[in-house]
Amino acid sequence: MIYLDNSATTPLSSVVKESMMRAMEEFGNPSSLHALGLSAEKTVTASRDAIFSALGIRNKDAYRLYFTSSGSDANNQVLFGAARAKNFRFTPRIITTDSEHPSVLEPLSVLKNSGVEVVHLSTKGGKISLDEVREAINERTILISVMAVNNETGAIYDLRSIFSLAKRLNPQIITHTDCVQGCMKIPFSPETVMADAVSLSAHKIHGPKGVGALLLAKSLITAKRITPLIYGGGQEGGMRSGTENVIGIAGFGAAAKEASASLLAFREHTLTLREAFLSALPNTIKVNTPETFAPHIISITLPRLRSETLLHRLSAEGIFVSSGSACASNKKGSNYVLPAYGLSSDDADSTLRISLSRDTQKEDLLFTAERIAAAMNELIKR
Amino acid sequence: MIYLDNSATTPLSSVVKESMMRAMEEFGNPSSLHALGLSAEKTVTASRDAIFSALGIRNKDAYRLYFTSSGSDANNQVLFGAARAKNFRFTPRIITTDSEHPSVLEPLSVLKNSGVEVVHLSTKGGKISLDEVREAINERTILISVMAVNNETGAIYDLRSIFSLAKRLNPQIITHTDCVQGCMKIPFSPETVMADAVSLSAHKIHGPKGVGALLLAKSLITAKRITPLIYGGGQEGGMRSGTENVIGIAGFGAAAKEASASLLAFREHTLTLREAFLSALPNTIKVNTPETFAPHIISITLPRLRSETLLHRLSAEGIFVSSGSACASNKKGSNYVLPAYGLSSDDADSTLRISLSRDTQKEDLLFTAERIAAAMNELIKR
Repeated sequence: MIYLDNSATTPLSSVVKESMMRAMEEFGNPSSLHALGLSAEKTVTASRDAIFSALGIRNKDAYRLYFTSSGSDANNQVLFGAARAKNFRFTPRIITTDSEHPSVLEPLSVLKNSGVEVVHLSTKGGKISLDEVREAINERTILISVMAVNNETGAIYDLRSIFSLAKRLNPQIITHTDCVQGCMKIPFSPETVMADAVSLSAHKIHGPKGVGALLLAKSLITAKRITPLIYGGGQEGGMRSGTENVIGIAGFGAAAKEASASLLAFREHTLTLREAFLSALPNTIKVNTPETFAPHIISITLPRLRSETLLHRLSAEGIFVSSGSACASNKKGSNYVLPAYGLSSDDADSTLRISLSRDTQKEDLLFTAERIAAAMNELIKR
Repeated sequence: MIYLDNSATTPLSSVVKESMMRAMEEFGNPSSLHALGLSAEKTVTASRDAIFSALGIRNKDAYRLYFTSSGSDANNQVLFGAARAKNFRFTPRIITTDSEHPSVLEPLSVLKNSGVEVVHLSTKGGKISLDEVREAINERTILISVMAVNNETGAIYDLRSIFSLAKRLNPQIITHTDCVQGCMKIPFSPETVMADAVSLSAHKIHGPKGVGALLLAKSLITAKRITPLIYGGGQEGGMRSGTENVIGIAGFGAAAKEASASLLAFREHTLTLREAFLSALPNTIKVNTPETFAPHIISITLPRLRSETLLHRLSAEGIFVSSGSACASNKKGSNYVLPAYGLSSDDADSTLRISLSRDTQKEDLLFTAERIAAAMNELIKR
């Protein structure tokens, strides 16, 4: 099996598995008063610390990390939380881009129906224009949400410039980034990019599915500028009720530790692999390379061949790639991210995503390039 | 170690651990189009089926099960979901009781602030008066939420009578039960009690923490009478976006299968143990026994001794019990459930909960009774 769909999800690493199996033996409820509860609470705290370190946070007092059930959950939490926190005396505006994950765009479309103004910045060519940001921001803008790395093109957006401009124009703006595809895969620091809120997910970095986190600036909590999504027993300082997913959280902590330790090696490794793969591809294939990109996501457009046809053929040969964001593949309607990048609708339908992990082998990639070439030879009518 | 806090959480069973370890090897994203995704999807479907069977659902087409991150999450989902689904042209009313879990009461208090009328039925003596239900229901009532088993007293409420009365008076009412403490511990069928919505949790039945589920009548979904809490990629038919917690869900399925297979034995076992324990206690201890009760939850009131004092002493001896609902123990302010049952505030502060599992040993319970007696002899000034 050759697995090249690592931006959809990754296998658990053995270190992660071990940490989860250890947590399986530790069954107290973190909220219980007795000693068993304390031990479960310690596991949760250790993971929180590991993620703080992995994010290189210098001022630990400035942030709080809330575990959620997914990156989607974290995105919903911050967007609904910010929009519902206050009774705004004006029409609040939220700024985002035209190629965010559905878990950002869908909540915003719900909020739009309830009176929030939503502005979508263009991401054409994998870039966001600062002029457009400047135009979009006004005194009614409560939040700006821009992803760190695009899940289909690998484009890295210049968060630091965007968020610092936003804060300069309106210091009250909450800056949020969906960092699910970028975090612990590219150098990223919430402090450096001036992010007040960061969404994370464990299963993209060899941790378990069903565990995410939302990092929030403490000042937002203190000023009650974010309301909870889930209320109840008051876990996580009241911001996230419900008994914690201790086993999953243990896995997330272990995954964060491992991923951040190998961050530079990951970049080296994926850059080398990417180059080797692209050189081995037939030159009729178009590579969609943004100006600034995360090397682990490779987007290629096949001439006159629907990506789904190739995807199924490769899958039958034991090679797993993606024709788009897996998270959105359940949905009807065509992909919006690639057209936003600038692809024609035909080209978008003929685009494959190959996504790498630290475990991806060069020979597997070369073999995949060969199989793609073979498929094209057979399938494309001349 | 003697663990008698099984209503706070339970250890994983070995069958559950095995199923989770199996799922750890299966890493596809259920939403991916390729074969790996299908295999993860199968795991989720198998767990869903196991829970359907455990609930004894006859008409499988009438319900849909959504996995959530906790029982609290499921409660929030149904309450906020029902209240936000429509633009009601009247002041909607929601009926609940005075001793629900905080994950029911807190969302309702948020909804109350946004204009929903909330009526709390009394649970004095562990009973709900049908006359009070009849008085509470009017044509503006959109939902009634009553737990199946009270988490502190073990009281079983007569859901069938309450819900059938509600439906008779107003067929539009959504009937919801928080079944976290009851499910797969007492005989329970959503169809028999006429519940449209049922909240469940894995970690009370030897499954993992951080996994819950909400069973919903399909008619509610079709008529769009419940909105999602989390929007995004459209997983779970759009009702619950975010990549599924496949490992946790695998554990939930295994736990449900095991618990439902041993349901009758569980009742036998816990009834016998309960009787043995109560007979062994000093007779100065008051036992809070509702008319109809789940035998695995034992509530005792100590004369002139704060339960926390005894809890810490027992914990030091390796005996783990609870002084109240663990889920609420983070919260300031005193317990409201026991006063609602009819205990004075002093008695509520002197009440311990001993909660049993299918693994609880008789000799451990008898030893605990002995240690409680010894502690009382030493600690209570004569």
